[in-house]
Amino acid sequence: MALMTPEQFEESVKQLKPRVFMNGKRVENLFENRNTRTVIESNKASYRWAQDPRYRDIMTCHSPLVDERVNRYTYVCANTEDLVKKAEAGTFTAEMLGTCIYRCVGLDAFHALASTTWEMDRDLGTEYHPRFLEYLRMVQKKDLSVAGALTEPRGSRSKKTIDWPDPYLSLKVMERKKDGIVVRGAKINISGAYASHELLVLPQSSHSEVEKDYAVAFATPTGADGITYICQYSPYSAERDQATDLEELGNPVFGQRETAMVIFDDVFVPWERVFHCGENKYSGKIVARFGRTHRMTCGGTCKVGFMNQIIGASKLVQEYKGLEKVPHINEQLTEMVVLRETGRACGLAAANKGSEEPPGSGVFLPDEVMGNVSKLNICNAFWRVLALAGDIGGGLVVTMPSMKELKNPEVKGFVEEFYSFGSDEPTENIMKVHKLLQNWTAGQHGVATWHGAGPVMAQKIMLQRVIKYDHEKELVRNTLNLKKKE
Amino acid sequence: MALMTPEQFEESVKQLKPRVFMNGKRVENLFENRNTRTVIESNKASYRWAQDPRYRDIMTCHSPLVDERVNRYTYVCANTEDLVKKAEAGTFTAEMLGTCIYRCVGLDAFHALASTTWEMDRDLGTEYHPRFLEYLRMVQKKDLSVAGALTEPRGSRSKKTIDWPDPYLSLKVMERKKDGIVVRGAKINISGAYASHELLVLPQSSHSEVEKDYAVAFATPTGADGITYICQYSPYSAERDQATDLEELGNPVFGQRETAMVIFDDVFVPWERVFHCGENKYSGKIVARFGRTHRMTCGGTCKVGFMNQIIGASKLVQEYKGLEKVPHINEQLTEMVVLRETGRACGLAAANKGSEEPPGSGVFLPDEVMGNVSKLNICNAFWRVLALAGDIGGGLVVTMPSMKELKNPEVKGFVEEFYSFGSDEPTENIMKVHKLLQNWTAGQHGVATWHGAGPVMAQKIMLQRVIKYDHEKELVRNTLNLKKKE
Amino acid sequence: MALMTPEQFEESVKQLKPRVFMNGKRVENLFENRNTRTVIESNKASYRWAQDPRYRDIMTCHSPLVDERVNRYTYVCANTEDLVKKAEAGTFTAEMLGTCIYRCVGLDAFHALASTTWEMDRDLGTEYHPRFLEYLRMVQKKDLSVAGALTEPRGSRSKKTIDWPDPYLSLKVMERKKDGIVVRGAKINISGAYASHELLVLPQSSHSEVEKDYAVAFATPTGADGITYICQYSPYSAERDQATDLEELGNPVFGQRETAMVIFDDVFVPWERVFHCGENKYSGKIVARFGRTHRMTCGGTCKVGFMNQIIGASKLVQEYKGLEKVPHINEQLTEMVVLRETGRACGLAAANKGSEEPPGSGVFLPDEVMGNVSKLNICNAFWRVLALAGDIGGGLVVTMPSMKELKNPEVKGFVEEFYSFGSDEPTENIMKVHKLLQNWTAGQHGVATWHGAGPVMAQKIMLQRVIKYDHEKELVRNTLNLKKKE
Amino acid sequence: MALMTPEQFEESVKQLKPRVFMNGKRVENLFENRNTRTVIESNKASYRWAQDPRYRDIMTCHSPLVDERVNRYTYVCANTEDLVKKAEAGTFTAEMLGTCIYRCVGLDAFHALASTTWEMDRDLGTEYHPRFLEYLRMVQKKDLSVAGALTEPRGSRSKKTIDWPDPYLSLKVMERKKDGIVVRGAKINISGAYASHELLVLPQSSHSEVEKDYAVAFATPTGADGITYICQYSPYSAERDQATDLEELGNPVFGQRETAMVIFDDVFVPWERVFHCGENKYSGKIVARFGRTHRMTCGGTCKVGFMNQIIGASKLVQEYKGLEKVPHINEQLTEMVVLRETGRACGLAAANKGSEEPPGSGVFLPDEVMGNVSKLNICNAFWRVLALAGDIGGGLVVTMPSMKELKNPEVKGFVEEFYSFGSDEPTENIMKVHKLLQNWTAGQHGVATWHGAGPVMAQKIMLQRVIKYDHEKELVRNTLNLKKKE
Repeated sequence: MALMTPEQFEESVKQLKPRVFMNGKRVENLFENRNTRTVIESNKASYRWAQDPRYRDIMTCHSPLVDERVNRYTYVCANTEDLVKKAEAGTFTAEMLGTCIYRCVGLDAFHALASTTWEMDRDLGTEYHPRFLEYLRMVQKKDLSVAGALTEPRGSRSKKTIDWPDPYLSLKVMERKKDGIVVRGAKINISGAYASHELLVLPQSSHSEVEKDYAVAFATPTGADGITYICQYSPYSAERDQATDLEELGNPVFGQRETAMVIFDDVFVPWERVFHCGENKYSGKIVARFGRTHRMTCGGTCKVGFMNQIIGASKLVQEYKGLEKVPHINEQLTEMVVLRETGRACGLAAANKGSEEPPGSGVFLPDEVMGNVSKLNICNAFWRVLALAGDIGGGLVVTMPSMKELKNPEVKGFVEEFYSFGSDEPTENIMKVHKLLQNWTAGQHGVATWHGAGPVMAQKIMLQRVIKYDHEKELVRNTLNLKKKE
Repeated sequence: MALMTPEQFEESVKQLKPRVFMNGKRVENLFENRNTRTVIESNKASYRWAQDPRYRDIMTCHSPLVDERVNRYTYVCANTEDLVKKAEAGTFTAEMLGTCIYRCVGLDAFHALASTTWEMDRDLGTEYHPRFLEYLRMVQKKDLSVAGALTEPRGSRSKKTIDWPDPYLSLKVMERKKDGIVVRGAKINISGAYASHELLVLPQSSHSEVEKDYAVAFATPTGADGITYICQYSPYSAERDQATDLEELGNPVFGQRETAMVIFDDVFVPWERVFHCGENKYSGKIVARFGRTHRMTCGGTCKVGFMNQIIGASKLVQEYKGLEKVPHINEQLTEMVVLRETGRACGLAAANKGSEEPPGSGVFLPDEVMGNVSKLNICNAFWRVLALAGDIGGGLVVTMPSMKELKNPEVKGFVEEFYSFGSDEPTENIMKVHKLLQNWTAGQHGVATWHGAGPVMAQKIMLQRVIKYDHEKELVRNTLNLKKKE
Repeated sequence: MALMTPEQFEESVKQLKPRVFMNGKRVENLFENRNTRTVIESNKASYRWAQDPRYRDIMTCHSPLVDERVNRYTYVCANTEDLVKKAEAGTFTAEMLGTCIYRCVGLDAFHALASTTWEMDRDLGTEYHPRFLEYLRMVQKKDLSVAGALTEPRGSRSKKTIDWPDPYLSLKVMERKKDGIVVRGAKINISGAYASHELLVLPQSSHSEVEKDYAVAFATPTGADGITYICQYSPYSAERDQATDLEELGNPVFGQRETAMVIFDDVFVPWERVFHCGENKYSGKIVARFGRTHRMTCGGTCKVGFMNQIIGASKLVQEYKGLEKVPHINEQLTEMVVLRETGRACGLAAANKGSEEPPGSGVFLPDEVMGNVSKLNICNAFWRVLALAGDIGGGLVVTMPSMKELKNPEVKGFVEEFYSFGSDEPTENIMKVHKLLQNWTAGQHGVATWHGAGPVMAQKIMLQRVIKYDHEKELVRNTLNLKKKE
Repeated sequence: MALMTPEQFEESVKQLKPRVFMNGKRVENLFENRNTRTVIESNKASYRWAQDPRYRDIMTCHSPLVDERVNRYTYVCANTEDLVKKAEAGTFTAEMLGTCIYRCVGLDAFHALASTTWEMDRDLGTEYHPRFLEYLRMVQKKDLSVAGALTEPRGSRSKKTIDWPDPYLSLKVMERKKDGIVVRGAKINISGAYASHELLVLPQSSHSEVEKDYAVAFATPTGADGITYICQYSPYSAERDQATDLEELGNPVFGQRETAMVIFDDVFVPWERVFHCGENKYSGKIVARFGRTHRMTCGGTCKVGFMNQIIGASKLVQEYKGLEKVPHINEQLTEMVVLRETGRACGLAAANKGSEEPPGSGVFLPDEVMGNVSKLNICNAFWRVLALAGDIGGGLVVTMPSMKELKNPEVKGFVEEFYSFGSDEPTENIMKVHKLLQNWTAGQHGVATWHGAGPVMAQKIMLQRVIKYDHEKELVRNTLNLKKKE
């Protein structure tokens, strides 16, 4: 059966030997480093749910490619029902984890490549699509976690790639060999790559003829020679490192969101893992289709799940403080729900109105307009929800003492008394809920929301490219009985 | 066949003899008065489209009740596909007319009564539901236009109905006779009633035991004895009255939106047209179900259509002025589209997530949360779209001279030269498009948007009533491993 | 004494014989045409207040130029106290009239010319400044109403003035004669010009060397040969024309806001009234300084006064309906006040931080950043206030029958009963207050707010031109102890 | 001279021996603990600036009370010029530190007590005012740092203080002795108290007759018997604790914002330091006047300074990335400036319109309406600025590796190459600027902004209490010639 157990997943991750650095030091063991560990825990959950009868329908589906039940995070949508399920899965994983499922970027990259390899083969007579399907079949069979990589360091935005003094600020093909290619460069802000089995690499942008060496997509196993992961290190990383007990933290098991810069220092990729190489006119399509898929994900699905955590915690604070009947708090909670449901509606519309792209490929992508709309809305909505939660949560959200004080005999009594709000809820619970709100309102997801699936300007540009106004103009012409121009 | 032709509709309206006043005078002929005429034209269009093969699918459907194809505006939804079609029809009629289709309130009132008469009969053993179905069957067979009426003058909002010095500020049953009831009171802001065949009257609010005489719903033919219509009269009415040619106006044929106060001065209603009378516990349900249906209509459907007119005109102005490449104008147009698509997504979600209410009744209503969310969003969105259109349109939108100047030999040349923007578009077209924008941005639909289907506070109150937080709180408890309270 | 009485003002307007067209017909008498009459009434009020001891301080001041007390609307600010008084006068006139005082554009044009004629003379050795002061002295002495004109029809925005096929879409000097110049073209959206004594004409934009003939500013008496006024005609114009009694209207005496397109068909202007002619490098300065002055006016001052009318009416509706204790209505009123006070604060800051421009000229202009900020904020704020008023006012704001119905014996009783809200306020008052809200929320001031003093993009462009970031960057460098670049 | 040198300040802090806990452990030395140290550094800066001729005017002023030049943070405003200076000082300290000057709450508490002790003495014949002045004289002479404390743990918000099971959730007078009082309870979210010389304690709210024991205000030296400080401990605290070099941090010297819960466990306060005790009708006045003063501070002054840091860093990122000519980035920077200037304008208006309260007291407080307006606006503005900075800053803001990697030979080269953006700026600088943006956009100031000077609802409530509508209603009555009610 094409589904790993969580235990098998753990075992498989132990086999990975990536070269990882964090906080100025080599990470020798992904399980022992508390921050890299959170990535393993998140992905592991996706294996656990797939085994759980309660979540089987949302986390798995039948794949004709292997004629078996596979994890939904390895499956390319073939109709709008699939897209709806995909959207619901995005909300489910986000609300269960309170952070990212690190398989989602890879899944959306599958969609971009399934669609564009098919098109390249049709147009150019290349043979990328069968190669990609072979790869995908392996992924499904082995139930692999696949991270995705797109964003690059880049040089001055006012110059073209080809004009940057340092040619490696975008990932570049250095050499084309008989058995494969050699690449150099880096991908930045890459989520959870070091604890996934594979990394699927896409180009960052469209490329002109002279930039052909930047038009490249491929898969590479984690820990391949020449790859180095330089991990983010934030205040939240430090806090996790120095905690006595993970329960002191705002998201004890799954953490905030772990990324790394992935360095490719002359990395060899065999041809059977190369899915795009030099066909510069198709780089932009890969990027656009990834964006089209990932904007629904980041827009209307995972943030809905995140908001559920924030709304739940805000509601609990309201109850702890005895504010259930205060109109303005209820109004704020309602506003949060309105923002969440608006996000959900746009995500579902993107799925429901999805279409085959290109026609004949068998690959379904979300509706372009609705996907971009959902991402645009959710960005602003998410910041507003953070702000509202910060208002309801109160100053305590950012002025809390360490949960360690509850074990400090000299002050334990004071803390328990004075953070009780006079309620009969254990003070520990109250503090934990505030800690969760801190994790969101003073954490990294606000900024990340802008940039996952591209900053808002990227959505606006895409919308300006695809919106047509003919229908609307015709309505006006009819209403006003406008004269034809002579 | 259960579909009238537009000509038959006109003929049928000629038979109506309502007592109508406008601008201080009796309206003797609904066709000759230019303002009442717009209502006839709007409703007539709904008969025309139903005959048109291009629009047959959206404007008609099969009704099992009469086993015939009927106009969608007489049909009660029996599943979520019906609700989706209903939503699409709402957008279609709005974008074609640029104003209200006056059959929509009645349609939503059908839904409220179909659902609640079924429930009253089930609970109380009354026989309202078959009576209502008999009425609906007649409406479908004859393809009648039915207006709806809910809003009442009301007295001080800080007092209960029963405590108002004037008992008729809410519509009241004066007498229960053998063959029917006699009512007195008024309904206000009633759209298009005088040029519809029937008026369906619902209670305005929930009522207590002592307010039983206010718990009443019924149908009455237009022009019944004792009914007087006192029409709105706005600057737009005056402009229409004094125009030399209707093409001078911003919406030449269909106008802005016509309402009247409907006075019931001891009006007799036979029992076979009474669908609720004294069962005060169910008044609130009728109102809530009407709201639930009408919020999707006003929220996610008709405003989408209105926005299309506004967006189309804004786009044309951009082109006339040679502003196609100006980034901030393109950004504003994009913002309009984002707001429109957000509204559409919420409306569709309300339809897609609709449910049978009450279970067993066969009547489908939109999802309560999504419907309220769609209305809340669209109110603010619509004002924003008006503002954006006013910015793109420029000062001319409100400083335009009369289109009559184009026929005034003394100034015609100046007007044609100086309002041409140097484009090759006929100046008449340019002026008309600005006039259409005036019709929206300096017109009545802004305020109307707040109040159709109830002001925003009504949506917030309903949301606070139906939103549950258990799921979200449970997510937080799991994430944080909260202790059970002892 | 340099102050006319209102009666003298009326008399002086009777001497004007402008060629005015409205609604397709010649306006023979500005006093008898109800729409042109409103302009006379507004300006007349400025003469009445100047005589009224209660308002003397705000409406008049001592002018060293003539060493007499003059109307503030003829006085060029010489320090920041003057600017503060000017700002307060803008609020005062707006809240008293509920519409524009038509002397304000001319006043702001005085500032632009006082400053720039001084600078041209200094830089170029021209003699515009004494000529301008001579003109201003005459204006002050005679206490004239002076309208201002800037906006032009313009051709395609994607082309330069010089490249438009029709050279007169911007006002152009046709001929330079010994005794003066001849101009052709038009100014559009010009407020109240036909009932002012003089019109002060500024260029619309900056001009290049080849566009020298467009670099022109001058004054011309109302009714000069070759000038034609083509008036706006809106639904509100039609309503006023057809009213039985002006008290039926939302602003009975002063109306909405009256503008006209002013045609210059070979108009001769003697040199002593020409203040700029051919010095193309200074056209942009005149425009920018007018904008700098007028943005404070439109931004932080007159809209504050308008908001007071809207807030007052909203408050009265709240009271009539018995909603004084309803939290969300009180919250909405508070929001209106917050928006108003924010506008006021920005306007005052623009005045308080004003400066002499150019140094040495003796002319004080508002602070550029704060003036633009005030205009940007107030545009959005004003639309929000309109929306809020529309929500509080209720559907009645746009569905009201004519006030004539109160005199119609057949329906008078119904109207009085059913629009009373059960309060003891005369129904006539209630209807009038709703009519005033209609005048705002479904009227022309929303759109006008964007465009008075230029659309928001004009403010953004100006801000981008003047904002410096050096101080802020230096703070960051210090905080982080950044390395110097080598 | 009444001004300490920074060195004297350091020395004086060394004398303090408060009982402080952080992260589960006793803090033995405020200088050695890196987090408590930031408070010392912030306050020390205020002594340094007072000595610096460049900042003398803003940081010091003449105090008639001691007839000497004193630090502005010990001076009670006696006119509106003082208030303007106070506002400017608030911006200055905030932009220089990038965090709080911990003397500001105490300063605002001085204003509340100066005003209310004067009023209590006048009304009740108490002798609090001379006692308070004596205290203030000592503070000025010794140039002490005085923290302020208001917020309390509180019990259920749906019950009154007197009905909470635990009477100490609000600070309570336990005993009135001959020589002083004994208090028990806690103050929470108290900024910088442990490293200030004194703590000035105010009541949290108004109190009824039966809650007299909660109506208490007093001063107490830091480290008094019975006082325990339990410090906040956030991810940022952990990050600071574990840094190799403070320059790795987003605000190396001054940190985020340090608060503590202050426990009063039977603390004795001598009568000469008690300024309010039992006069329950005046508790609410103390709170309101503190709020009135502190809302200008938090609203229009310090956030303006914070925004300058954020704007400066955003601008630098724009330059590093070569985005200087990208319209939407320039638009976002402009929006930030507009929000900042709006905040500044409201703060200045609050100062300029300030008034003596109560008349005769000699104490000047900011204008109540404008102060509340400024706080309301700035809260939303600050969140928006954070969001915009997060958009401009890019994903790097939250995905940055540790600055330690720049010293790690194995990855140093990669990091320097790939975070250079191809610019010639040292990568270290680029990373530091992103770290500063992280400090804001993923830090504690967002939430803190809501709650400093009370959450927004507190401002709305106060505004509803003080706004009058008589003027606005009268304007409407005049415009419409409304009938008097009979």
